[in-house]
Amino acid sequence: MTFIDACFKKPTKHTPIWMMRQAGRYLPEYRATRAKAKDFIDFCRKPELAMEATLQPIDILDVDAAILFSDILVVPLEMGMKLEFVEKKGPVFHDPVGCMADLERLSKTPEDNLGYVYEAVGKIRKNLAPDKALIGFAGSPWTLATYMVEGQGSKTFENIKRAVYKDPEFMKALLSMLTESVKKYLINQIDAGANAVQVFDSWGGALEEEKFFEFSWKYMLEISEYIKKERPNIPVILFSKGVGTYMDKIYGQFDVFGVDWGTPMKLAKDKLFDRYALQGNLEPSRLYNRDEMLKGAEELLDLFKNESGHIFNLGHGMIPDLPVENAKELVSFVHSRSQR
Amino acid sequence: MTFIDACFKKPTKHTPIWMMRQAGRYLPEYRATRAKAKDFIDFCRKPELAMEATLQPIDILDVDAAILFSDILVVPLEMGMKLEFVEKKGPVFHDPVGCMADLERLSKTPEDNLGYVYEAVGKIRKNLAPDKALIGFAGSPWTLATYMVEGQGSKTFENIKRAVYKDPEFMKALLSMLTESVKKYLINQIDAGANAVQVFDSWGGALEEEKFFEFSWKYMLEISEYIKKERPNIPVILFSKGVGTYMDKIYGQFDVFGVDWGTPMKLAKDKLFDRYALQGNLEPSRLYNRDEMLKGAEELLDLFKNESGHIFNLGHGMIPDLPVENAKELVSFVHSRSQR
Repeated sequence: MTFIDACFKKPTKHTPIWMMRQAGRYLPEYRATRAKAKDFIDFCRKPELAMEATLQPIDILDVDAAILFSDILVVPLEMGMKLEFVEKKGPVFHDPVGCMADLERLSKTPEDNLGYVYEAVGKIRKNLAPDKALIGFAGSPWTLATYMVEGQGSKTFENIKRAVYKDPEFMKALLSMLTESVKKYLINQIDAGANAVQVFDSWGGALEEEKFFEFSWKYMLEISEYIKKERPNIPVILFSKGVGTYMDKIYGQFDVFGVDWGTPMKLAKDKLFDRYALQGNLEPSRLYNRDEMLKGAEELLDLFKNESGHIFNLGHGMIPDLPVENAKELVSFVHSRSQR
Repeated sequence: MTFIDACFKKPTKHTPIWMMRQAGRYLPEYRATRAKAKDFIDFCRKPELAMEATLQPIDILDVDAAILFSDILVVPLEMGMKLEFVEKKGPVFHDPVGCMADLERLSKTPEDNLGYVYEAVGKIRKNLAPDKALIGFAGSPWTLATYMVEGQGSKTFENIKRAVYKDPEFMKALLSMLTESVKKYLINQIDAGANAVQVFDSWGGALEEEKFFEFSWKYMLEISEYIKKERPNIPVILFSKGVGTYMDKIYGQFDVFGVDWGTPMKLAKDKLFDRYALQGNLEPSRLYNRDEMLKGAEELLDLFKNESGHIFNLGHGMIPDLPVENAKELVSFVHSRSQR
């Protein structure tokens, strides 16, 4: 598979491309599938619907990899937390955790309740063309913890950051607990058919350098090292948003570093490309404007001319009102322009 | 003044310190002053109250500089926009701007309606000890524009980013308009008694590299170059949050670069200290924990040992529930530990 080869920095016939949140609201087909579910959690829990959503961008855009349709928050959900997706607001936990004692009410084995995800993975892999990769994923322990402690998305992360500085033992207990579950959750996805896995650390950039490595990166690496030991042929992608200034200290055993749009790709390449494949990082908003999109894509491809190990992606998720036509054109542009 | 000397990288008897949002809710005295005003806008418009709030951290913490108490949004307010500060939500503009035609309803000379700010500056300077500096400030055009276009604080900046890519002419017209007013607004603050000025670009990091320089930095530099031409003895501080990965391209005529906590100070020093003084950048959350605070402060001071041109500050604003005792101790620690 083109995508898998690029993860291992092997030569490929063209630069592979997929897009974060490619199975999303910008697609009318996605909205139709979504409408068949009672609510967003029900959508995640129905393997048949998750499969439909996952495969749509393959059929419509011709991307090189499908990413499992699901949500990072199914892990805390299956720990027993009261999750609701509120329209126009996003996810809300009605019972956030705030101290060591709160951890006692959480299940230690959410991975055992996530059979619907593994079932979806199996169905998708069976229905996916053999040259297309299926990416499984999980949220990073830090990012899952931010939602569990804040109770919702946050601009300031005030509760969890207070905990980092005032109650680090609680934070580390929570992060260790999540790490153990994410390890098994990803192994189960792999065993069900996922060809690669990505750990999403959406909120790594909420932490200053020292604390990022102590409270986020450390746990991501633990997960990655576990997977590389247990399933060495599966590429592991680590994506932390907003940590481009910390790249001098990025190390450890994984295959692909996901680059966000706030990190100039040239900088990431200088710092990391000798050791890792790089994935990214077109600013999604460029898809609002065809010229800006093609110009940005061309610059990115030119950076990696004649070098293997670049996976084209956006630097963050697709935005709901981006035009599908541009997404399609981006895929075909990347494929044709990177033809070797 | 110690602070002013450090801005020009002259030797000082100790490292000067002030803290962003040092006049703020974490101080009981501030809350008492705030209670005398009808609402937050009324607070900003009463020079007597603004003076009280500005001087409190000097008396309580013994910082080396006072920063004018005001809000960056008084500029769009005096352009005629309908601003309200909503409890627990923050500022809201009830009439956001979204296209070129919307600019016609904005006053081109808000600086003429900001007499209450200049009056406050004059009063503060008169009541401030001669060795303490008074910093005037304004929001960067880009940051003011984000509020004016989004209508409120935003996590995704979806409206303004759409405008950047789809309607750059509108954006540039708005930014130019704001630039002209901010120039005059800051000159008026200087003429009323401000000893230095800082431009706050809270949302610079919402833009990818190319667009940051095109839509934010360019206008900040225009302002800075104007001030350096008109009032060459006044130090200009430029603070853009979240742009640490773009530092290779930072250039232009200004005196001090404000470093946010997401940019390791060592990195900023390597990139910029040969040309600029540096201000920052202790993660404010460290003030939750005395040991973390002192450890972080010591590391920062050690970086600049025997070198002139570091102004100690937080890497972002004070958080409302930080303990005043720690803020006090931080100031005395910085002063004594940096004694030369």
